[in-house]
Amino acid sequence: MNNKELVSELANRTKWSSKDVSSLVSATVSVIIGELTEENSVAIPSFGTFEVKKKLERVLVNPITKQRMLVPPKMVVSFKPNTSLKSRIKS
Amino acid sequence: MNNKELVSELANRTKWSSKDVSSLVSATVSVIIGELTEENSVAIPSFGTFEVKKKLERVLVNPITKQRMLVPPKMVVSFKPNTSLKSRIKS
Repeated sequence: MNNKELVSELANRTKWSSKDVSSLVSATVSVIIGELTEENSVAIPSFGTFEVKKKLERVLVNPITKQRMLVPPKMVVSFKPNTSLKSRIKS
Repeated sequence: MNNKELVSELANRTKWSSKDVSSLVSATVSVIIGELTEENSVAIPSFGTFEVKKKLERVLVNPITKQRMLVPPKMVVSFKPNTSLKSRIKS
């Protein structure tokens, strides 16, 4: 499902126009990203939690040249589905 | 950020009431979950893609008793941030 399909499905299910739905979906994404860039997590009921995790730096060895490289630490976004979502997917 | 804070932030940024925002956020979550239960992925621009992945069955060995157990295959939800989100988090 792409964004267009998501927006039209939401417009069908609710009283809002596609334009309104689309702008609210964008605003939601932008609020979530804003929180993530400040390293805050965002919890959405019946769904899950978005958070930013720090991946530690690590040493990588090229198996052919045996050369060692230091991979710097980085921040990655993770989504942790909550129990309600997990059980709905399992069944 | 919890759901209440997300909803009030969205209501501040838009022309909608908290009640309207809250019902649209729930509807969005419910459409996404509906797609995931049918094993469809959902792509949201500037954000990422939700998808369901099958984790294969695997054999687990209890390190003390050496007993082998078969862990059955299962479906898990994963969120893959897209390039735009990744680069915003990195910086």
